[in-house]
Amino acid sequence: MAKRKLETCFSPALYNPAEYGDSIVVIIDILRASSAICTAFANGASEIIPVAEVSEAKLYKSKGYLVAAERDGYVLDFADFGNSPFNFTREKVEGRTIVYSTTNGTGIINLASSAYMTVIGSFLNIGALTRWLLNQERDVLLFCAGWKNRFNIEDTLCAGAIAEKILLSSIYSTICDSTIAAIDLWSLAKNDLPGYIEKVAQRTRLRDKGLDDCIDFCITADFTEKIPVIKNGILVDYDS
Amino acid sequence: MAKRKLETCFSPALYNPAEYGDSIVVIIDILRASSAICTAFANGASEIIPVAEVSEAKLYKSKGYLVAAERDGYVLDFADFGNSPFNFTREKVEGRTIVYSTTNGTGIINLASSAYMTVIGSFLNIGALTRWLLNQERDVLLFCAGWKNRFNIEDTLCAGAIAEKILLSSIYSTICDSTIAAIDLWSLAKNDLPGYIEKVAQRTRLRDKGLDDCIDFCITADFTEKIPVIKNGILVDYDS
Repeated sequence: MAKRKLETCFSPALYNPAEYGDSIVVIIDILRASSAICTAFANGASEIIPVAEVSEAKLYKSKGYLVAAERDGYVLDFADFGNSPFNFTREKVEGRTIVYSTTNGTGIINLASSAYMTVIGSFLNIGALTRWLLNQERDVLLFCAGWKNRFNIEDTLCAGAIAEKILLSSIYSTICDSTIAAIDLWSLAKNDLPGYIEKVAQRTRLRDKGLDDCIDFCITADFTEKIPVIKNGILVDYDS
Repeated sequence: MAKRKLETCFSPALYNPAEYGDSIVVIIDILRASSAICTAFANGASEIIPVAEVSEAKLYKSKGYLVAAERDGYVLDFADFGNSPFNFTREKVEGRTIVYSTTNGTGIINLASSAYMTVIGSFLNIGALTRWLLNQERDVLLFCAGWKNRFNIEDTLCAGAIAEKILLSSIYSTICDSTIAAIDLWSLAKNDLPGYIEKVAQRTRLRDKGLDDCIDFCITADFTEKIPVIKNGILVDYDS
């Protein structure tokens, strides 16, 4: 049997939807959208409606939905809360539908919607996610959200961590330079991930805005077993 | 005095010309365009006219020019030779004007032409290039050609090697994740560069076509002091 193919994409600007119609695409935006989404499902959210435009989020708010919306780290004034995983507490989200719009994350979710399946990955669900991926009969693309179409290190490290685990199985193989680079950067970072994350640009951006309190949480492995998946444009728990 | 800014771009698809009108852009395509161009000037070529389209290269050939042209590693039938640095011997190129069209390289040269200055970087001229950059009063972008708009490791390693040297001077600083990643990958590779290059995709592509004989040469530091620069759309030796 031919091995399944594992690839990594470092930016939405490098993503070619036509190549991944038969693949599982894993969206990774660990500071902070994909971590927030995993936390929301861990705390019992029933579904998350990703919207790219602020105007759309505002319309949902006027209809009574719970709305999480930020731009460049700041909570939008009409929203219930922003993009920190700490906002998505059980008290607030259990059993609720959340409308969610962020700088990077939701646009990418829409971009990847033509894939065979699109799921959300982060350190928070990395163990469950990799076990699940190994049980699928599909090629996998690890899709790093980056920052405003640029490469970023934190998503690359998470992709490297996922890739390292998947390739251990020998079910998958890769000839993708991005995947090799991600694994090698992960190998440099993994023994002191908080220390390594200190030097990434988004760390500085969040610190400058006083929004860096969640970083240690976002790089915690295996907080949840949930695998958020997109069905008909809406994020739900895969096992729901 | 504010430090000068150093950034790295991993793919033409991530390049935003508007940001670099005041910067020096260093184009890096070590397997094989930027290595071939450095070799041509080392061997006395007087100028290189980069053309993106095959039809344009063919037209020049009909006018009697020396033409180097390849697509996906293969020499085009009408051309005098292809993209291996070993083609650009002193015997063939000294004092000559060369018309040059490759899969990646020449398209990127045109893309970067709106920068303040565009030069060609490779391992072959790395020492001279970094010394020269440190004497300029400009921000610097290390622009990796990649492969068909994808990230590649070999250009990233060369960018990391250049960045490491430049940042030692403390004249430059960086907050660019791509630069940090390039330096860290270079730190992993530099003690056994031929061994590390073994695992990159382009190594496999060139080997499959029997075109990998020049790789050891392309990762040789300081073969030449020449710095190819674009003036009015044409590549010339900076000191000419």
